[in-house]
Amino acid sequence: MNDDFQLSCPTPLSNHKTVQLAHGGGGRLMRELIERLFLPAFAVVDEASLQANLPGSLNEAQPEKVKLLPPHDAAVLSAEAPRLAVTTDSFVVSPLFFPGGDIGKLAVCGTVNDLAMAGAKPAFLTAGFILEEGLPLETLRRVVASMSAAARSAGVKIIAGDTKVVDRGKADGMFINTAGIGWVASDVNISPARVCPGDVILINGDLGRHGVAVMSVREGLQFEGAFESDCAPLSSLVEAMLAVEPDIHCLRDLTRGGLAAALNEIAGDAQVGIELDEASIPIAEPVAAACELLGLDPLYVANEGRLAAFVAPEAAPRMLEAMRRHAAGPQAAIIGKVTAEHAGTVELRGRFGGRRIVDFLSGEQMPRIC
Amino acid sequence: MNDDFQLSCPTPLSNHKTVQLAHGGGGRLMRELIERLFLPAFAVVDEASLQANLPGSLNEAQPEKVKLLPPHDAAVLSAEAPRLAVTTDSFVVSPLFFPGGDIGKLAVCGTVNDLAMAGAKPAFLTAGFILEEGLPLETLRRVVASMSAAARSAGVKIIAGDTKVVDRGKADGMFINTAGIGWVASDVNISPARVCPGDVILINGDLGRHGVAVMSVREGLQFEGAFESDCAPLSSLVEAMLAVEPDIHCLRDLTRGGLAAALNEIAGDAQVGIELDEASIPIAEPVAAACELLGLDPLYVANEGRLAAFVAPEAAPRMLEAMRRHAAGPQAAIIGKVTAEHAGTVELRGRFGGRRIVDFLSGEQMPRIC
Repeated sequence: MNDDFQLSCPTPLSNHKTVQLAHGGGGRLMRELIERLFLPAFAVVDEASLQANLPGSLNEAQPEKVKLLPPHDAAVLSAEAPRLAVTTDSFVVSPLFFPGGDIGKLAVCGTVNDLAMAGAKPAFLTAGFILEEGLPLETLRRVVASMSAAARSAGVKIIAGDTKVVDRGKADGMFINTAGIGWVASDVNISPARVCPGDVILINGDLGRHGVAVMSVREGLQFEGAFESDCAPLSSLVEAMLAVEPDIHCLRDLTRGGLAAALNEIAGDAQVGIELDEASIPIAEPVAAACELLGLDPLYVANEGRLAAFVAPEAAPRMLEAMRRHAAGPQAAIIGKVTAEHAGTVELRGRFGGRRIVDFLSGEQMPRIC
Repeated sequence: MNDDFQLSCPTPLSNHKTVQLAHGGGGRLMRELIERLFLPAFAVVDEASLQANLPGSLNEAQPEKVKLLPPHDAAVLSAEAPRLAVTTDSFVVSPLFFPGGDIGKLAVCGTVNDLAMAGAKPAFLTAGFILEEGLPLETLRRVVASMSAAARSAGVKIIAGDTKVVDRGKADGMFINTAGIGWVASDVNISPARVCPGDVILINGDLGRHGVAVMSVREGLQFEGAFESDCAPLSSLVEAMLAVEPDIHCLRDLTRGGLAAALNEIAGDAQVGIELDEASIPIAEPVAAACELLGLDPLYVANEGRLAAFVAPEAAPRMLEAMRRHAAGPQAAIIGKVTAEHAGTVELRGRFGGRRIVDFLSGEQMPRIC
């Protein structure tokens, strides 16, 4: 059964207002949903636009090798890329819409950012939808439009998809899985194993917006000085960073578990110590206030448009400058350094000189934020 | 946050018996789940075994170009494959276990088969899990073991994954998404557009086992002459078929919507008529009896290990022979042909000479069977 979709054919949707079981059943209604709702939103995948997603050298040298075969169970791409990056992520955020984004934007940015953290230029996404019977089609349409916009802004194509519908009460509105494929340039070598004592740690902006934005909707709270999720694709920021310094040692996005979890993972994997300077970590005033009210530590709150970069000390000043010049990094900051001491731990030097260990959380601070 | 997994490190799981929210939360429990449950099951992805997943020519000629970078947010593969096939599928089958399979086996076979239907040799899978709080870890372990076995038998590697946990009552036990990447040989050109009048249609075995097996568990029915789902990877069957005849016009697996939906799609896409011979379509006696009891038409029942192949008439005899020689096709049969008349429709010639149109279902015959 060809329940996957690849190409395009727009026309209005028929007379249902909500998702029916049959929208996932392999019959006419499912075809209609695919042809009239998903495909128009995900743009026409033609050979010329696919070509734009292939690495530059290939694109210039051998355009005739880049070809999309006709729509079928799998999207077949013709390419001779040297290094492929592959990742996947499921998205279950609740609520589906929050200030600054929604599950669709998140599903694109999350996977694009995972590719970017490997130093890859994101090229293609797949999208798998699990929908609850009764979900308003209008909701789905908004989410899909948002995915489409996010994919355009991140420069990726959604090339294959799938839809399943489960009975009322058997899912929470909508879940989305995206898998991503990207290309890694031959001079890029990004890995926790390359982090070493002396490395400088930079982040691209203030922390905590995404998690607090989601929590505030969920709890029905309104904060003074309204703020939005930081949810954004980081691929072009990473591209700009690699342009000034291809030898970035490691990149990590600060999603579930926040800065604390990301740095603890790297400290553990690289067997190094990490020393943070509390005063240099940007946290917006309303986010800090909201965190206090909600009983959250912003270092553990999820972000969806923030990364940490590890670079050699001599590269740090030009890296900081490149990040600040980019739209996704005006508040970029150097927040700490890597040490040989205290291997495997993250230590925070407080504003007044005190030091504390920033450990992994063993439990769950905020569920369903991505 | 590195919530994706790639490499291996087995040790026993700690003191929880059921999935906790924190298993999806980015902290220690999630790491533990990944390191101790998923990774050991999905085999050690080392460079040598990855290499085995790349196309022969590459493998022989340039082994130094095949390299897995250290574990990180994305699995980075080094390869210069000529044609890439990409697909995705989500799995929401209820119940999770059924005679002859479970959601894990299904999640591997479904995506492997979608790749095989494009004529691709499946190479890599990603796996995204959405788990309901309270799911017994033992259940998850069984499913993951089953995925691992299915991946081994299909010759694919699971190279990236993700886990999310949603609150009790917000999902139905477990949903799985898999995305797949495969390689297409340069002489293979499989597409509905290539189906033309005169083509012979073959299937690789009897119809309806999967859907009826799932339905019978769901309805608490026991049928005489017990039967199992046909759920199976079809990649090696397709490889054997391409070996006797690389010029297969089209392949399609007979999943949601069964044979009827698959053939209607192809008749519509290729603008040809399809004529089926009812007497030649194999349906096992107990499956036919169960269908009668459940009020199902076996032509519309989902299969998970059955395909239809369209080949030129002169290739049909050797194709049939190759299919019957293979473990996945001992009951293969020629079931019909493609005509220039009645473009876009599928017609069934009955046992007693009558003819009827086999249309798309407009509604839902059986939800949640994959």
